[in-house]
Parts: sequence; structure tokens; C-alpha cells
Amino acid sequence: MGEADLLLPGERLDDLLIQGLKIIQHPREFCFSLDAVLLAHFAFFRPGWRVADLGSGTGVIGFLLAARGAGYVTGLEISPYMADMAKRSILLNKLAAKMQVIQGDFRKVNQLLPAGEWDLVVSNPPYRPLGKGAVSPNDRVALARHEVAANLDDVIQAARYLVKYRGRFAMVHLPERMAEILQKMSAAGLEPKRVRLIHPVLHKKPAMLLVEGIRGARPGVDVMPPLAVYTAAGDYSKEIKSYYA
Amino acid sequence: MGEADLLLPGERLDDLLIQGLKIIQHPREFCFSLDAVLLAHFAFFRPGWRVADLGSGTGVIGFLLAARGAGYVTGLEISPYMADMAKRSILLNKLAAKMQVIQGDFRKVNQLLPAGEWDLVVSNPPYRPLGKGAVSPNDRVALARHEVAANLDDVIQAARYLVKYRGRFAMVHLPERMAEILQKMSAAGLEPKRVRLIHPVLHKKPAMLLVEGIRGARPGVDVMPPLAVYTAAGDYSKEIKSYYA
Repeated sequence: MGEADLLLPGERLDDLLIQGLKIIQHPREFCFSLDAVLLAHFAFFRPGWRVADLGSGTGVIGFLLAARGAGYVTGLEISPYMADMAKRSILLNKLAAKMQVIQGDFRKVNQLLPAGEWDLVVSNPPYRPLGKGAVSPNDRVALARHEVAANLDDVIQAARYLVKYRGRFAMVHLPERMAEILQKMSAAGLEPKRVRLIHPVLHKKPAMLLVEGIRGARPGVDVMPPLAVYTAAGDYSKEIKSYYA
Repeated sequence: MGEADLLLPGERLDDLLIQGLKIIQHPREFCFSLDAVLLAHFAFFRPGWRVADLGSGTGVIGFLLAARGAGYVTGLEISPYMADMAKRSILLNKLAAKMQVIQGDFRKVNQLLPAGEWDLVVSNPPYRPLGKGAVSPNDRVALARHEVAANLDDVIQAARYLVKYRGRFAMVHLPERMAEILQKMSAAGLEPKRVRLIHPVLHKKPAMLLVEGIRGARPGVDVMPPLAVYTAAGDYSKEIKSYYA
């Protein structure tokens, strides 16, 4: 099939700027953002690892991880339309041997996937509790941004279910929820081991939080150097540029 | 009494570089470090607030807060020698109307001070669990660096006991213990509201963590811009310099 056969009306084809990968998005739906790219570069994995992506949306994190050597990526996505779009992106990129997307609710992950078999679970979940900030009138955008369906506890519980002993869970979220996130991960046995704060520029407050937990690890967090998205001059920072090299 | 009358053999008089304040220290005892200065500048207080300092050592945090407008500072210090030294520094600085040091163990704070009467509790506690890193052969230095007497739980419980509803607790500690700290503060009802990471230089990992909790507050952390101690050129950063202006 050609590209045209895989695109539905209104959809567009975006370039992931890595190994020629492309991704189908719809301008009125939730489109991936830098958050997903940051998470894909923060998550630690070894070649061949099995990865699960909770709330995989367009599939962007899976594509970036597959391109960088992950063994097999399984995405779970609640929205049938988003899941379908991601499946078509998999076909488009000829990655069906390395990636799948399952349409389903990760709050019921135990009905969808076996327990304790994943080396790495990643998630770019909805950040905002209901009642905080305007909720999008587009249900699928609302699902991706607000805790309409899954909330923080659901993400952590699903990750805990999937990940093997000593396996990892990496998530991007809001710094303002850091205390809650670290507390809940630790309580679930996904001990926080690595944290990185993302700042628009180095001297500003962080806008995003990257966190990695390891199942069954001892307490003790490696807080990494801060990551600035932009330089003082307004260009992408060297590290962000390196993601696209 | 003159300065000479207040100094014991081997002790020296150090300048706090603020309002002419001086502090007695002994080169073989635990001397205050930048950590204490950072905490004194991080802690929020209004003029006239009552402050308690858990493990007050030389008294440095109290002096800095008193100089900057705190109402009355009560230090608790377990080592009789350190407490005596701090009491002599209070006399030397003519601050007996604004500051006291009580020799006592803050694990027994309920036998020493009334509950719920402090606006702000600060602490620069021992950072390292026993068994991590070489413990000083000087018992008093060991007390200040390692959890020989009080541990993290003890500090948080003592703070919780002293602080009034909506009062604050500010502490300096190690970033690697961030998850544990946030979790224990939250569990004790001292909800973490403000966090700042201190980096030797801006692009390096943080070496210290400043955290403020508010008793009875809702969850939600304000993660502040990173603070660099040094510029890339090796000078003190502008913010650190401003502490001594």
C-alpha cells in the first residue's frame, strides 16, 4: 500500500526526523509533543527489550524506541480512532515485526496482557486531574490531557502489573505532581531511581518531569543534570538537537 | 564580656558576613557549611515569626534568620559542647532577646517544648544513614553528619510536633533521598509545597535539595528554578553573592 491508501481525510503525514520514520496525525486530534520525544530519549533500555507503552496515542514513543533498538513495542490505546491511526503508521513504516498497538483500556490490562513479562513500561499519560484547567471538547484530546479515563494510580498500577522483577517504568509528567508521583511509585514497588527535570531555559522553573522506577530496587534517586529545551538565544539546546541528529 | 572571654582554647571567631554577626566555631568540630546558608535563604518567613531549628549546631541558621527579621529562634542541639558554643555566640552577638539554644535531643521534643506553636521549623539534619560513608571518629561531627542519633523520621516527627497548622517546615538534605523525604513529609501531614535543587554548576547534577512543607496544605509542589553555586567561570553565582551583599 502507498502512503495515500493509509491516510484518512483530514489526516497528515509528519516526519519523525529519525531513520525516515513517518507518523500519521490529525490536526484536530491529540498530536504528539516534545514530552513524548523527551521520554523516548530518557527511558533506559537494552537492545531487544520488550517495551509496553500505556496510552500510546499516535504511537510516537514506540516508533522512537523501535528505531533506537527496542526489541518489540506493545502500545495500549483506549481511543479506537487513535489506535487505528497508530496501526496505519506501523504499516506505513513497515514496523509490524517490531511493534503492535492494542485498542483497550489499561485499567483492565490484566484482561489484555500477561503479567510481569515486560522489561520496560513507558507512559506519557494525561497530566491533569479533572477539574484543573479547561477540558477539551474533543473527547479524544480530553482523554489524552485530563484524567478522564485513567489517572496516575491507574498508570502506576498497570505498569506494576506488566513490568518484570528489576524491569523499569519511565514516565513523563508535571513537576507539580512530583511528590505524589514518587510516593505512589514507591508504594507500588516501582522504586524511583532516576529523575530529570526539563526546563524551558536553564534558569527557569521546570515544565516537565521525567522519572524512572525499577521494580524491586532499593530506595535512592539519581537526580540528573537539568535539561534545557532552549538556549538563552532561543535555539534548541545542544541535547535537544542531538535527538534529531 | 569581650570576645576573648567567650572563646575557649582552640576555638575561632568566624564572620557571618551579614550585619556584623560573628560565630564561634572549632576547627575540629562540625563547622557550618554552605548548606546552612542556602537553607536560611530558602526558608520563607514573615517578620516576627517564631522559628525552631532542629539540630542547631553552631547556631548559624538561627543567626541568619534573626538577622533577616525572624521574631524569635529556638535552637535544639543534642551536643552539650555545640550548644554551649552557640550560647556563647548568642551573647557575643547580643542576640539573647531574639534567640536561645536548648541542649536536648529533638527525639524527645515533647519533653522540651510545647506542641503546635511554631510558624517555621528549619533543619539541616545529618544526611547519611549509618553504614553509608566513613563515620567521623569525632562523636560530635559524626552526630552532625550521620544518623547516629536522629534520623529522617525523627526530624520530620519533631517538626510535625512543633509546627502550627499552616506553619512551615524547611529542610536541606541530599537529592538522592528526595523520594523518601517527600513521601515521609506528606505522610506526616507536612505536605511538600516547594523544592529547589542546588547544583555546583548549572549543567551538573544537584548536590543538595531544599524542601519546604506546609502543615495541612493540599498536594502540589512548586519546583523552583535550579540554583547554581558557581558560574561556568568558577566564581560564586549572582544569587550566592547576593546572600552576602
